[in-house]
Amino acid sequence: MNVVKFGGSSLASGSQLKKVLQIVKGDKARKVVVVSAPGKRSSDDEKVTDLLIDLGMKALAKQDYQAVLSSVIARYSSIAEELNLGNEIIDEIELNLAALVAGNKQEPDYYLDAFKASGEDNNAKLVAAYFNHEGLPARYVNPQEAGLIVTNEPGNARVLPEAYEKLQQLRASEEVIIFPGFFGYTKDGKVCTFSRGGSDITGAILANGTQADLYENFTDVDAIYVANPNVVENPKGIKTLTYREMRELSYAGFSVLHDEALQPAFKQGIPVQIKNTNNPEAPGTSIVKERHSADQGVVGIASSHGFCSIYIEKYLMNREIGFGRRVLEILEDQKLSYEHMPSGIDDLTIILRDHQLSDEGEAALLERLRIELEADSVVVERNLALIMIVGEGMRRKIGTMSKAATAFAESNINIDMINQGASEVSVMFGIAADQEDKAIQALYKAFFE
Amino acid sequence: MNVVKFGGSSLASGSQLKKVLQIVKGDKARKVVVVSAPGKRSSDDEKVTDLLIDLGMKALAKQDYQAVLSSVIARYSSIAEELNLGNEIIDEIELNLAALVAGNKQEPDYYLDAFKASGEDNNAKLVAAYFNHEGLPARYVNPQEAGLIVTNEPGNARVLPEAYEKLQQLRASEEVIIFPGFFGYTKDGKVCTFSRGGSDITGAILANGTQADLYENFTDVDAIYVANPNVVENPKGIKTLTYREMRELSYAGFSVLHDEALQPAFKQGIPVQIKNTNNPEAPGTSIVKERHSADQGVVGIASSHGFCSIYIEKYLMNREIGFGRRVLEILEDQKLSYEHMPSGIDDLTIILRDHQLSDEGEAALLERLRIELEADSVVVERNLALIMIVGEGMRRKIGTMSKAATAFAESNINIDMINQGASEVSVMFGIAADQEDKAIQALYKAFFE
Repeated sequence: MNVVKFGGSSLASGSQLKKVLQIVKGDKARKVVVVSAPGKRSSDDEKVTDLLIDLGMKALAKQDYQAVLSSVIARYSSIAEELNLGNEIIDEIELNLAALVAGNKQEPDYYLDAFKASGEDNNAKLVAAYFNHEGLPARYVNPQEAGLIVTNEPGNARVLPEAYEKLQQLRASEEVIIFPGFFGYTKDGKVCTFSRGGSDITGAILANGTQADLYENFTDVDAIYVANPNVVENPKGIKTLTYREMRELSYAGFSVLHDEALQPAFKQGIPVQIKNTNNPEAPGTSIVKERHSADQGVVGIASSHGFCSIYIEKYLMNREIGFGRRVLEILEDQKLSYEHMPSGIDDLTIILRDHQLSDEGEAALLERLRIELEADSVVVERNLALIMIVGEGMRRKIGTMSKAATAFAESNINIDMINQGASEVSVMFGIAADQEDKAIQALYKAFFE
Repeated sequence: MNVVKFGGSSLASGSQLKKVLQIVKGDKARKVVVVSAPGKRSSDDEKVTDLLIDLGMKALAKQDYQAVLSSVIARYSSIAEELNLGNEIIDEIELNLAALVAGNKQEPDYYLDAFKASGEDNNAKLVAAYFNHEGLPARYVNPQEAGLIVTNEPGNARVLPEAYEKLQQLRASEEVIIFPGFFGYTKDGKVCTFSRGGSDITGAILANGTQADLYENFTDVDAIYVANPNVVENPKGIKTLTYREMRELSYAGFSVLHDEALQPAFKQGIPVQIKNTNNPEAPGTSIVKERHSADQGVVGIASSHGFCSIYIEKYLMNREIGFGRRVLEILEDQKLSYEHMPSGIDDLTIILRDHQLSDEGEAALLERLRIELEADSVVVERNLALIMIVGEGMRRKIGTMSKAATAFAESNINIDMINQGASEVSVMFGIAADQEDKAIQALYKAFFE
């Protein structure tokens, strides 16, 4: 059996829900359906979740919330009307929202989380009603009933290990299960939402709990692309990606899916298939534990900016036991987390995310590095981009580095830093941020054209 | 004025001393001459210093030392005879050695150090006698008389800062000064030798103390080569090298000069000229503070083996604050010093010198890394070589990396690791040790042919 998750754009309108029904009907294995809240119908539309946050804030602040409440209901109504569902489901949603407004305002975090979660929850009820209306037996399942127990951390809940066993029971259902994404219940019965990528997390948890054969993740792109489509025109799609490659690419700015959201599925070795609701015939991208086929080495190129480097020079540094450790202690002490630390004989470069380092913080850090480490020179450079080429096949492929470095050279891009460890799953290049797009284009050309 | 230092092979025989005299006479600026002990005359010869250590050990152990004592004296005698110096100087050397044998055996380290130092000391007296005999006014100067005060660390003495001021007086000498290398005197009047590169250190200290314009270091090669002449046939010589480049090259196995030995000269910004006693017309290699001329970027290639890598993998490593610091703490605790630490998202590679890690030590370290850091996987790989390309010009030169990586690829060499920080003075490649020579040859071809 498969767990199938649909994202917000796949559920934004009645016509989208029709596609969803066809997809679910298209494969009997699709037994558990995880739904998001209705997303944007066009780029200037509003997501229901954003409207709900607005509604919750206004209700909490005792401001007039009628207009935004109406907007929320109007979104569900328009879907229900398009699908000829009648008023019953909309009445149920109205009642639910009224109950939320009347909820306990003494715990504002939980109060708001309940609003956020209702976007998915009410949409799951609506989807179940629609499927039944169209003759596909379906059942809305509430996360509390299913045993999706989470920590008491509003907006950042984590699933508790005991949840998985209980969720196994979902396999026994005769009907297709419609499960709201994005939240679970605490042991004391409160709604708590997950962080970023919330519905993806729910899907991955259910895939794990039900020991699914496949976790299908329907979104609005045909595949994960080998490079950012905003930078490279019509980039190729990736057919197969390993968990590991996915994670390396996510790190450097791939945004289709947040890799940590998929972790519960990865942990069980369940393959994840990225598909397009609007073009379900496209093969999509498989994310798997291991890849067996031979390939060209590099599977994807990613980049991210907003990094800075701190260059520390000290004569005889490499003879000074504990130097690197003391640098890292000072960073930790200044509440800075670092990304990489390439080193020479008498120098060391720390790469970190720029936003962590205010002008004041920079001054304090440099002072400490100069005084406590007696460094000869400490220099900060901002506006650094990290470019990564990723692929487990690189390990067996001589010449990857040559191809990449030649692409940089031919595009007249200076490489400030290079970092490649023994894993050989990725190589990182540090370059000036204003060269980022040019670098991605050059690497795409070198590896994929 | 110049400080001029002659190495052991430049002073191994009377005919070599004739060359030395011509060199000193060839430039009036050559006022301070630092001499080593007589070195090998051929590859199967023995160095006087090695004979002296043998002599000292035997005398200390109250074993029969007559044969080795005779060998030492025979070496000086053969030089004196070749130069028609008469017996006076040899009598003086014999008396000196007899006094050393009769020295205080209660402090064995100091006892032995006095023997080791006598190789240079007696040779300085002999050279002074020879210069005077040939009509060049010269004066042997004892390090104690000159104020070359060092720490009480037999075999590893360091110059004390106050020595420099006193040494300035050497400038005032009318005669050429002949100064024994390799040792100084402690404050309480004991002889103490320097470590590795001992006579080079003395020369650098005198260059600093006398504020010399140039420190000429005469050895038996025409230049420092861009690559190891045992690996590359007839490599090009380096015309100019910066202090920094010299240091990076030394780290990775360049053995003409130990860069730390030259440090006292570097500190004063005094240029060092490497010349060949046997071919003084050759321009040699200049080691300077800064290079102004444009150049091709890479000035030298060096390599070193005997490294290993420890590869540590842990999911979400890059989110775990303090992970790198804790790795380094464990290394420090296990008395291991590391060279480099390239990192991926969820992995980290530690490069260290192989000899530090016994099988037992390895097992203990892996255990700690696995348990204390909860690493998912820890793998040690031995037989790693580090290849470095060095050159301050690389910073301004796009395409260096491309050239190097292409050279590796065309020679079918897999690059296990790459490390290049913001200094851009060197790039380090980790490869399998059995590919080391092939890599050097390929890089030489790429950058220098």
